[in-house]
Formats: sequence, C-alpha cells, structure tokens
Amino acid sequence: MSKGFLVVISSPSGGGKTTLKEEIFKYERDICYSVSYTTRLPRQEEVQGKDYYFVSREEFLQLVKEKKFVEWAEVHGNFYGTPRDFIEENINKGRIILLDIDVQGARKIKECGLSAVFIFLVPPSWEELERRLMKRKTENELEIKKRLERAKEELKFYRDYDYLVVNRLIAEAIQDIRCIIRAEKCRRSRNEKWIKQLISGLS
Amino acid sequence: MSKGFLVVISSPSGGGKTTLKEEIFKYERDICYSVSYTTRLPRQEEVQGKDYYFVSREEFLQLVKEKKFVEWAEVHGNFYGTPRDFIEENINKGRIILLDIDVQGARKIKECGLSAVFIFLVPPSWEELERRLMKRKTENELEIKKRLERAKEELKFYRDYDYLVVNRLIAEAIQDIRCIIRAEKCRRSRNEKWIKQLISGLS
Repeated sequence: MSKGFLVVISSPSGGGKTTLKEEIFKYERDICYSVSYTTRLPRQEEVQGKDYYFVSREEFLQLVKEKKFVEWAEVHGNFYGTPRDFIEENINKGRIILLDIDVQGARKIKECGLSAVFIFLVPPSWEELERRLMKRKTENELEIKKRLERAKEELKFYRDYDYLVVNRLIAEAIQDIRCIIRAEKCRRSRNEKWIKQLISGLS
Repeated sequence: MSKGFLVVISSPSGGGKTTLKEEIFKYERDICYSVSYTTRLPRQEEVQGKDYYFVSREEFLQLVKEKKFVEWAEVHGNFYGTPRDFIEENINKGRIILLDIDVQGARKIKECGLSAVFIFLVPPSWEELERRLMKRKTENELEIKKRLERAKEELKFYRDYDYLVVNRLIAEAIQDIRCIIRAEKCRRSRNEKWIKQLISGLS
C-alpha cells in the first residue's frame, strides 16, 4: 500500500471544477473528498455537508480559534476553511484526499508540509473562460467582472503547481486528473517501505 | 504542445518488459521507441532494427569512438548502446521517447541531463521473478542463476527512479505506465511556454 496524500485542485472561477469532481468520484471509489467549511450562502443546488459545511461567521471564527483548519482564507468576502482532523486521519490510513481550494489556500497547504500533489486546472483560452462564466448565469454582471479580474491574478500562481491540466474537453481533463492520481500512487517516494521489504526479503 | 522527454524503463531480467513495450505502442501512437545497439546474438523471435540493431563488437566500438551513444554499457558480457542522434532530434520535436535500459544505463541517462522520467518495473515478489525466469526457457540454468543474482543487485538501484510500477498483472502495469506518461505531459515544467502565453494574452 502506498502512502496517503492530498490532491489539491485549483482553478480560476468557471474552470469547471464542480462537474469534474463529480465525474472523478463516479469512477474512483478509493478517493475521498474533503468538504470545506464556508460562510457563503449555498447556491440553489448545493447540499449542506456534501458541497460545503455552511456555517455562520461566528461558528467559523470559533473553529479558527480551535485550530480546526489546515488552511482558511477570505475569498470574495466569504470565509473558506479546510478541516484538519479529517485530512490527517485519512492520510494516516493511506487514503487519497481531493481538495478543491483556491490559489491562496493551495499555497498554505504547501507550507503546512502535508504530502500533496498540486493540480492547476486552466482554461484553454481567456475567451473561453469569459464565455463559461457568462453561461453559468448564477452571478450578476458585477460578480462576473470580479471573478474575471480575480482569474487574471490567480493564473499567475501557476508556479505553485506540479501539474497544469487544460480544461478543453471535460472528459479529457478528467482523464488527465485520474492519470495524475494513478501515476502519483506509483511514485517511488510513496512506496519506499514496500520496495525495502522486497529487497530485504532477498538477502 | 508540451516539451519532449525520455521515458526510461528498467527492470530486473524477467520483469516482462518486452510484452509491456509492445502493448504500450499498440495504444500510444505518439510515442516513439529508441532501438538500442547490441553485440549480443538475436533471440529466435527478434528482428534486426526493431528489437535491436545487432552489430559486431568492432562496429560497436567504432560508434563509441564517434560518440554516437548517449550511454553504453557491458551487460552479461555484451555491449548495449543508446543512439544519441535519434534521441536529441525527437526530444527537440516535442516527442516522447521510450527507452528500455538497465540500471547502469539509466544512471548514465540521468547524468547526461536530458529531460527524462525514470520508471522501475519491479516484480511483485522474489518468488514470482524466479518463476518467470524459469518459464521463459530461452536461457540455460547457469544463465538464469546469473540473471537472478543480477536482479538482486539491480533492485538496489530503485532510488534512481521516479516511479515504481509493480508488475503483478501486466494489464495493470501497462495502465500505470500509460498514466505516468499522460501525467508527465501535464507537468507544469513541460508547459511553461504555453501558460506564459495564456497569461500574457490577458494583460
């Protein structure tokens, strides 16, 4: 059994992460998803405890005080946090945990020293990103403009990531991510214990 | 287009590399294979220019003199060499080149600084490796013993490799290697040019 690790996926708004996550979980039963805490309001289709744990600002700040997050941040005026207990427990069990966080959060994960793979899901072009945000229609025009501005800034963080997956066709991007996870399981550094056993059994 | 790179696959004798290579090429049309030079005699089913370039010791040593190999070595009393021109040309064209070489050769490739991914194909157990070598029946008993001894030594080189692929079921090992190649195409370091263009197009 290879060691557990985090798979951190970030992308500028409208990158298509939601569809992608659902598809990955459909095929990969051995991956678990870390549900984040947030103070933002749920969108119509979002479910408490599945998409996010929706909490009040007071509840969130209490959890911060209790050091219950490996990282937390304010994005678009709302708080988002990643629960520590869930992640540490599952890494210790050898599991792979998918984390869907923004560039600031990813940087904090990197700094906290957990074993993690960083994937940046990028749009094939700027025009395509605009088109996708417009199509979503869950935000008003001002919100879309804010997200585009933010995407510009976020793309500049690409150096923090191990992999760039271009979201041209969603089916291809999913295949890329599934392959990255499978490849990462084969990493020598995650299988040292096993190979040492094989070698020591020899002599 | 991501940058070209080498995929170096090594394994102790009897690791099942031949089947594996054939299967990979069946599915991945954009990968090319670097055919090595050797002074050993062809096995019954082996084809000149496909499996190896079979040459005499004199021809081989002449190519060494002309620096036509990125690496060469003596294994089991025979010479093996990897042609330089073919590799450099194809990396420059953005291609992926599969190289099937032993641990000594892999270390030399590592030292020569070409962009390369190192995969070590390992048997699931020592007993299984013995069983596979016995089954092959292309070598005599002394040869098999020599190969087993050598495998013991080779396994100790595992730290030179980025990935360990366990050859339990060949179909699974092939899937692992195909995924490693696909994942490596997504590496940030191989796509810097593309992402820089995307970002510069924005501002």
